[in-house]
Amino acid sequence: MTDYRIFNETDALNYARQEVEFFAADADLVSNEFGDGNLNLVFKVVDQKSGRSLILKQALPYARCVGESWPLSTDRARIEAEVLMLHEKICPQHTVHIVKFDRDLSLIVMEDLSDHLIWRSALIQRKELPLAGQHIGTYLAKTLFFTSDYYLDPQQKKAKVAQFINPELCLITEDLFFTDPYRQHERNNYNPLLESEVQKIQSDPHLQAKVALLKYKFLNQAQALLHGDVHSGSVFVNESSTKVIDAEFGFYGPIAFDVGSVIGNLLLNYAGQPGLSETHVAQVYRQYLLDQIRQIWFTFAAEFARLMAAETTDVAFQVAEYQQLALQQIFVDAIGYAGTELIRRTIGLAHVADLDNIESTEQRAECELGALKLGQALIKNASELDDIEAVIQCIEKLAAS
Amino acid sequence: MTDYRIFNETDALNYARQEVEFFAADADLVSNEFGDGNLNLVFKVVDQKSGRSLILKQALPYARCVGESWPLSTDRARIEAEVLMLHEKICPQHTVHIVKFDRDLSLIVMEDLSDHLIWRSALIQRKELPLAGQHIGTYLAKTLFFTSDYYLDPQQKKAKVAQFINPELCLITEDLFFTDPYRQHERNNYNPLLESEVQKIQSDPHLQAKVALLKYKFLNQAQALLHGDVHSGSVFVNESSTKVIDAEFGFYGPIAFDVGSVIGNLLLNYAGQPGLSETHVAQVYRQYLLDQIRQIWFTFAAEFARLMAAETTDVAFQVAEYQQLALQQIFVDAIGYAGTELIRRTIGLAHVADLDNIESTEQRAECELGALKLGQALIKNASELDDIEAVIQCIEKLAAS
Repeated sequence: MTDYRIFNETDALNYARQEVEFFAADADLVSNEFGDGNLNLVFKVVDQKSGRSLILKQALPYARCVGESWPLSTDRARIEAEVLMLHEKICPQHTVHIVKFDRDLSLIVMEDLSDHLIWRSALIQRKELPLAGQHIGTYLAKTLFFTSDYYLDPQQKKAKVAQFINPELCLITEDLFFTDPYRQHERNNYNPLLESEVQKIQSDPHLQAKVALLKYKFLNQAQALLHGDVHSGSVFVNESSTKVIDAEFGFYGPIAFDVGSVIGNLLLNYAGQPGLSETHVAQVYRQYLLDQIRQIWFTFAAEFARLMAAETTDVAFQVAEYQQLALQQIFVDAIGYAGTELIRRTIGLAHVADLDNIESTEQRAECELGALKLGQALIKNASELDDIEAVIQCIEKLAAS
Repeated sequence: MTDYRIFNETDALNYARQEVEFFAADADLVSNEFGDGNLNLVFKVVDQKSGRSLILKQALPYARCVGESWPLSTDRARIEAEVLMLHEKICPQHTVHIVKFDRDLSLIVMEDLSDHLIWRSALIQRKELPLAGQHIGTYLAKTLFFTSDYYLDPQQKKAKVAQFINPELCLITEDLFFTDPYRQHERNNYNPLLESEVQKIQSDPHLQAKVALLKYKFLNQAQALLHGDVHSGSVFVNESSTKVIDAEFGFYGPIAFDVGSVIGNLLLNYAGQPGLSETHVAQVYRQYLLDQIRQIWFTFAAEFARLMAAETTDVAFQVAEYQQLALQQIFVDAIGYAGTELIRRTIGLAHVADLDNIESTEQRAECELGALKLGQALIKNASELDDIEAVIQCIEKLAAS
């Protein structure tokens, strides 16, 4: 870490010119920092002659959103780069391309995806991208299968578990997803109109027990190399392409967590739609969202099942009846995790624009209440919901009530 | 590892005299090697003047039972020493005392437990030790609780997961417990009279699926620092004392595995008793064994529940309803793991004297068949057996049939 220094725009420009084989020798480079995330600097360096561009992302030794009083190891840049490079090897079509990782500078150089849009923005704008759900289902199935014990030999797999131990970032999830929202905590942040529902959640031991089961699995099930933070702000989309970025939360965890995070984020948008648009427009887009959720699950399940049947190396896991049970367990837990995402984004520290963009406090409260009720229903009933159609019925029933 | 050399009896004696602060300067030492295990040399060094003694255990760079063609890392001695030292810190009353660990020599110096008997021998001799079950239940509850996420902070716990990654030894369990017995494999070794039952087991996809679920948990649930091999040959006992040894299989795994291993070993003895003694003697001792199984579970469950209620550091896991669910899940999986121990010790590579000591092939086959039927019943019905009394009813019903 002796060579670490915090970059400014000129540093980023010079680095892109001198240390990366990408731009032409006579490139006319400009650099600007545009990071809006919580933990990092993000620079875009463009050659004004050719229009070609690169992204440089640098981890800061503290959480940007809080400041130097919240130190965070820059090792997360190493984790992010290694997760993305491994995921890219497995699923290049849906993982951002990493051009270079500089460990001394905690700096990742990657392709610029300016011809894409952040998925969350696309959802808020009610864009009906036809392929995003299928693409993300494929990404999940491939990256999770090929990093699991179904495919890797146990020695390789255990070495990767050690390589990707990520306590600092995992702790953020452990606290913000599973702990804070279910009790009074200074980090919580919610619309005052939700007070009575929040109190109900925070005094429901049955709900808390179910959430604790999910938290315990998050802490203990080292099943596959997760992205760890596949919310709709970590995915770039356009009509034909879907690319996952931002894997600093990556670690060996429960397969269902990544799957549930994606579904949970579409449901946050679902919850927000009545506050973001006219009633009938919202209803139409909600159908699109439910269809995308179907696509995510069906694509994930079909591809994961196909891979289990065709590529499982361990003879003990080649039993068809086992594979069905394993996939069903992923489904049940994914629905539970989706529920926790709905609740933590409404009550907890980190919110989403799908709800926060709703201007009227009352209207926002109504949508947020929908998110909270749906979250609770999914967490409590996950093991009774047989399949994705049952989940969708549950969603629609709650939305109509 | 440059200083590693394989010890002979003189090396052990000289080492005990010069490198360990234990014997008096004028001690009259004798040394002999008596290891009957599969992987190590074991020396006993005695001072003939005082009668005081020490055990020196050295890991060989190959599996002793097979020879140099099966290389094994001597890092397992480091793992064994570190597991035992940590377990001793948590539960000194039931863990062998480690005097010294020499990493260069892969050598563990420990207290001599010659005033104890190996538990398996005591069981074969039908000794009714009153406290062994309670002691081992206490050992399991304490060592597993205090190394888990219930007690450790997540950062410490994740560091320990990495410290105890133990792929070579885990692979032995993964293969021998969960894979080989359920399909034809050259490592399998069983009484020819069991052929039809073995074929039944090896063509039962429902059983194989349940076993695969247990194997997947063994590979993926990094819940606590297991001993990893708590069979009745890894426990020293006498009327008043119980001491666990031999932790080279230690790793972060499912809590239920250690609990199930112990129960499975008492059930192997239960299965063997009719071949080891007269019918009425066997019946009396079987009642003792069932009572010990009750003691193990009740002591473990009561102590683990007490610790969860009193010492759980993570507020998310302090919910009483969660703690009940978590303990019930440990119970269900422990019964499943006990079932796999019964089957692998009868069909697989490594047998136990509780069955192998039965001289008549026919009588042995009858007892082994009992072990196989019980093993299958436990694996298949674990989730329907509500409590330990239901398990005991299931055992007795099968024994009577």
